[in-house]
Amino acid sequence: MTHEAGIPLGIRFKLLSDTPQDSAAQVVSDVVIGDYRDLDTLREFARGCDVITFDHEHVPTEHLRALEADGIPVRPGPDALVHAQDKGVMRAKLDAIGVPCPRHRIVSDPQDVAAFAAEGEGFPVVLKTVRGGYDGKGVWVVDSVEEAADPFKAGVPVLAEEKVDYVRELAANVVRSPHGQAVAYPVVESQQVNGVCDTVVAPAPDLDEALALEASEMALNIAKELGVVGHLAVELFQTRDGRILVNELAMRPHNSGHWSMDGAVTSQFANHVRAVLDLPLGDPRPRAKWTVMVNVLGGDFPDMYSAYLHCMARDPQLKIHMYGKDVKPGRKVGHVNTYGDDLDDVLERARHAAGYLRGTITE
Amino acid sequence: MTHEAGIPLGIRFKLLSDTPQDSAAQVVSDVVIGDYRDLDTLREFARGCDVITFDHEHVPTEHLRALEADGIPVRPGPDALVHAQDKGVMRAKLDAIGVPCPRHRIVSDPQDVAAFAAEGEGFPVVLKTVRGGYDGKGVWVVDSVEEAADPFKAGVPVLAEEKVDYVRELAANVVRSPHGQAVAYPVVESQQVNGVCDTVVAPAPDLDEALALEASEMALNIAKELGVVGHLAVELFQTRDGRILVNELAMRPHNSGHWSMDGAVTSQFANHVRAVLDLPLGDPRPRAKWTVMVNVLGGDFPDMYSAYLHCMARDPQLKIHMYGKDVKPGRKVGHVNTYGDDLDDVLERARHAAGYLRGTITE
Repeated sequence: MTHEAGIPLGIRFKLLSDTPQDSAAQVVSDVVIGDYRDLDTLREFARGCDVITFDHEHVPTEHLRALEADGIPVRPGPDALVHAQDKGVMRAKLDAIGVPCPRHRIVSDPQDVAAFAAEGEGFPVVLKTVRGGYDGKGVWVVDSVEEAADPFKAGVPVLAEEKVDYVRELAANVVRSPHGQAVAYPVVESQQVNGVCDTVVAPAPDLDEALALEASEMALNIAKELGVVGHLAVELFQTRDGRILVNELAMRPHNSGHWSMDGAVTSQFANHVRAVLDLPLGDPRPRAKWTVMVNVLGGDFPDMYSAYLHCMARDPQLKIHMYGKDVKPGRKVGHVNTYGDDLDDVLERARHAAGYLRGTITE
Repeated sequence: MTHEAGIPLGIRFKLLSDTPQDSAAQVVSDVVIGDYRDLDTLREFARGCDVITFDHEHVPTEHLRALEADGIPVRPGPDALVHAQDKGVMRAKLDAIGVPCPRHRIVSDPQDVAAFAAEGEGFPVVLKTVRGGYDGKGVWVVDSVEEAADPFKAGVPVLAEEKVDYVRELAANVVRSPHGQAVAYPVVESQQVNGVCDTVVAPAPDLDEALALEASEMALNIAKELGVVGHLAVELFQTRDGRILVNELAMRPHNSGHWSMDGAVTSQFANHVRAVLDLPLGDPRPRAKWTVMVNVLGGDFPDMYSAYLHCMARDPQLKIHMYGKDVKPGRKVGHVNTYGDDLDDVLERARHAAGYLRGTITE
């Protein structure tokens, strides 16, 4: 999707990909197959690149520092990106700059988890490995000291957080360029199912204007304080008592911003690329009153073709984005966007299409 | 741009390109370098393709017939495409199906041109080689029998046409799929400078509703009668006495439809791909009241980078589409789209950006 956004800007990519089957590797012309965890591979790849950026956060921080030392611009840079790679570093930094977060601390063992619970409202407690988690992986909600053993087995430091009493999840997406220009997308509502993003509504319905402004300013401030270059997604809890707390950070185009491909003047992908190259940023404002994104997850049937035909025929305004992945149950294989003036209609169309593609709706 | 539109649809291209520097070859992953005039090259290329389509009309008709005989679906097929390849065949067919055209006939030599002139309003007469012309090439406007010699030198049959007294040029763009579904984009105004498309306004301002409907129905009818699959651009003259006459046909995504990339629910490129694969077509309606496209021509300065920065910074809503071509004076190297409610503003923004990129506007 970043390549797609780069084409009209005249920007050409060289891609480092795990396998030739990766989504991006299917559509980019200049592809190197290799392991992003191997510094020699990264160094060889980086030769001749004007700038390096990412579609995930898993490249080891120390390798990125080595590339920078070699004189390769890395954007976002490792000193920013580490906050999206390590939840411990992220929480410490957000505390230091006064950004509200769930109550949290690094815990050493299950007994320490019990102590953390006792310091607040008790169990349940949320435990997260500080590195390597995504889409609900690396996250546990535990109700007792007995349940708290698993997260420590990986040998990675574990962060404990209070289980926030939230009414919904929001996301504030911003983009910042090296010379400090920044734009904020409208704050969206993000609905999760089983820890995986399912539906995003832009803008978040019935969101108090002051709270929306607070969320955007918070995201712009985090981008500035952390020195982010490119897209920053700030995942937020909206609490029952009307506050917003930071859940997670992502420093790349993010699922909560996929609506912008059809719903904003400039998509998150286009603005990420513009920021990474220090080009002036594009207008992030919405083009429609409501835009809804629903993820298409793989269902039981590997062949989506007839469902695909049905969805296109049923709704000629539907915007389909398929990733070229093999269909596996629960795997994100694409998303759909719909937009319009009537939120109920826009939601129904997106949910119907995503459900039909997955096979959970058959009429 | 067709590849760009194919990515979200999950459609992958194999590209036959003259050189690795061609715009499409820079962004498509599976590229074969070869000569589209060579049948063996075409046959080798076509192996493993589900369907063949084009971004120009120059592949010899007889080669396309050979590919079809080999069992390769060619869309649009040679029997349709020949009408966009050969202006003599096109005029004969349009006459046969009752579509209004400028007065015309094939002429054999300069004396015959004088005779053609005398049969109507006299000189000037428009002469066109029936094959190989584009962007004003292969077209002459002659005022006398002496001036009529050049077009015959190529040894290609020459078509004579009356010089139409038109108030403006319009284009009716439609897309048709193999099983006969068809959609019509709003009729646009196309402004030419030195025989090259400069500005397109969608929809055509102040166009009588009945005339717009007539143009759309004419284009849909031509697509049906000629068996077009994919995008058909019908270039039209709007005459001083309120008629519309067909100027040219193009059977591929066309410059007069580039506005649709940012201005329509479904772009001409997406609908062309959908049609070629016999997928249900997308909604062709505009997303904004006005959309303006202006072509970016190369100017005297090969490096557009600082102009590019200026344009992005001046107008964050500007949609830039660069083709990755080397800048040469007068060469189409990209286009810009703008949209909004105020036509004067939308026109000014697009013209300023295109002029600034070319170097004809410096403030």
